[in-house]
Amino acid sequence: MTPVRNARVLMKEYPGDQDYPEPGKHTVYDGGLTIDLDNVPLKNGEFLVKMLYFSIDPSIRVRMRILELGKPITNFGIGVVVCSENPDVKTGNHIEGVFDIQEYNIRNALKAEDPTLTLNIIDNPHNIPWSVFVGAAGMPGKTAYYGWKEVAHAKAGEVVYVSTGAGPVGSFVIQLAKKDGLKVIASAGSEEKVKFLKHLGVDVAFNYKTTKTSDVLAKEGPIDIYWDNVGGEMLDAAIAASNRRARIIACGATAGYNSGGAEPVRNLAQIMYKNITIYGFYIYEHDHKYKEEFYKTVPEWIAKGQIKYAEEVYDGLEKVGEAILAQQKGQNVAKSVVKVSDE
Amino acid sequence: MTPVRNARVLMKEYPGDQDYPEPGKHTVYDGGLTIDLDNVPLKNGEFLVKMLYFSIDPSIRVRMRILELGKPITNFGIGVVVCSENPDVKTGNHIEGVFDIQEYNIRNALKAEDPTLTLNIIDNPHNIPWSVFVGAAGMPGKTAYYGWKEVAHAKAGEVVYVSTGAGPVGSFVIQLAKKDGLKVIASAGSEEKVKFLKHLGVDVAFNYKTTKTSDVLAKEGPIDIYWDNVGGEMLDAAIAASNRRARIIACGATAGYNSGGAEPVRNLAQIMYKNITIYGFYIYEHDHKYKEEFYKTVPEWIAKGQIKYAEEVYDGLEKVGEAILAQQKGQNVAKSVVKVSDE
Repeated sequence: MTPVRNARVLMKEYPGDQDYPEPGKHTVYDGGLTIDLDNVPLKNGEFLVKMLYFSIDPSIRVRMRILELGKPITNFGIGVVVCSENPDVKTGNHIEGVFDIQEYNIRNALKAEDPTLTLNIIDNPHNIPWSVFVGAAGMPGKTAYYGWKEVAHAKAGEVVYVSTGAGPVGSFVIQLAKKDGLKVIASAGSEEKVKFLKHLGVDVAFNYKTTKTSDVLAKEGPIDIYWDNVGGEMLDAAIAASNRRARIIACGATAGYNSGGAEPVRNLAQIMYKNITIYGFYIYEHDHKYKEEFYKTVPEWIAKGQIKYAEEVYDGLEKVGEAILAQQKGQNVAKSVVKVSDE
Repeated sequence: MTPVRNARVLMKEYPGDQDYPEPGKHTVYDGGLTIDLDNVPLKNGEFLVKMLYFSIDPSIRVRMRILELGKPITNFGIGVVVCSENPDVKTGNHIEGVFDIQEYNIRNALKAEDPTLTLNIIDNPHNIPWSVFVGAAGMPGKTAYYGWKEVAHAKAGEVVYVSTGAGPVGSFVIQLAKKDGLKVIASAGSEEKVKFLKHLGVDVAFNYKTTKTSDVLAKEGPIDIYWDNVGGEMLDAAIAASNRRARIIACGATAGYNSGGAEPVRNLAQIMYKNITIYGFYIYEHDHKYKEEFYKTVPEWIAKGQIKYAEEVYDGLEKVGEAILAQQKGQNVAKSVVKVSDE
């Protein structure tokens, strides 16, 4: 068999702290490598994964600062095992986790000391699309599910505000909140996304670019829970509109990703008088507690349409740079996924 | 009997957001009123309290923004009941709570819908000084005790950093942390206060005006608990030096009190990756859970010398303005108390 292409996307140059990552300059597609699938030099314990989908997540922008130049960008993906010298991994297994953004990945373990490098073998008894395992049934879904269970302490009748509600984390949180009987306020950055929010059953959906968040929260709040994917000014608005004993789940800080670091937060002193708790939330701390339950529950919910999701699929690794940039600028219309290959 | 003086301290003019409160300008002593103690016109339910001590707390500066001009400043005090038309309150009872800063106060209930107006009848079986019931055995002590029990989740061997460690809250927290077997780092703003920290058994005591907080924390941390009485830059330094799963107890934000509002916090995005929780802490939320235990435990600890405290006593209400100003400038040497009268 002729060697096949093993394309990848490289971290070529670091974007400045206040720059967006430009395709071709900072992120570069490299189609020059090949791999001979009949003759893969696997060492003992290693296995070869043919990637099917990569997720494009806002946090890639944070990781970019520490990636090695000239090496592939990394992110969550799902693939299928082509061959294996590892007793725990069988040919045909589907594996999800953080991979090099490259068509084929060789790995040597499912577990790693660094929890971010843990790989999961994915069963798919409900036959949901594989791409969903990097979305609602993957890291974003886990973030929403674990966080909601662990720290939201939601009670029916309470009011929750979700920023970036049309994203994969926010849209999942919205649906969990509706299941639990809360009033849901959610924002997004385009009319199309606001439509999606309404489709999800959001009680008060608004475009934060055309409507002032603090005005909406003043009218529709006070809020008991704020699911924060943004930080900065929006976090300040939420603190100001918070009820006593409010819970804030700090889950993302996109406000500072392309503008020289985190936007300052000015209303923090209010958290004392209001007895607010702010939970920094990192899924790996909670994996041991919720992962099994998550995979038992969520794919079935998705199969039955009980949890809805929206996806924007880019075709091929050539599109990774473009997909990253669009997302950082908020120009994506739904959860961004790059399709690498059919099975 | 001739009427006696019933002096008070008035909120005459609001200090600008970036001004310190000047005695004689913003805070004004008024010695012109009298009260005839033989002929107090008490209505049914009312009682008259002769004040013994007032506490001077940093948070007075926050309350100043909402006090009515021309009316007395309010704060925690303790006094003795002179006469009562309230069945729950007996002549000779000692009562602690928030009062007008005035020699005599008439009140009509121990409980109030606004929890900050709740009054406590104080038994003193261990005969500790009455002034301590507005310090280590009062609101500052409760703040430390409730907060430590409720949200610090301290484990022996962990590292805690306490800012304003020489204050009544900080010094109490330090001693609770030492009881629980933690390594204690604490800062204060003068050499004299640093000496007091060492006297309390602090492992690493430093003057934050002459030593950089971030340097000390980099060397002696990472920290598992930060007891924050300051906010702003110091909170940022603590977040940066925090261990995974650190707990931050936000208990004061003095950094912004005289400088136009809260200093911005820039490192908040780090709380996600480190899974840090920030607890806004307001004692009244926890009074029902801990108050009885507190009054059973803490006065005895103090009587036995198991909890140490330091006091700086100003004599007479004429000194209130001066005491407030010195504290806002950090020039006090210990917990500030104003003695109003002997019994």
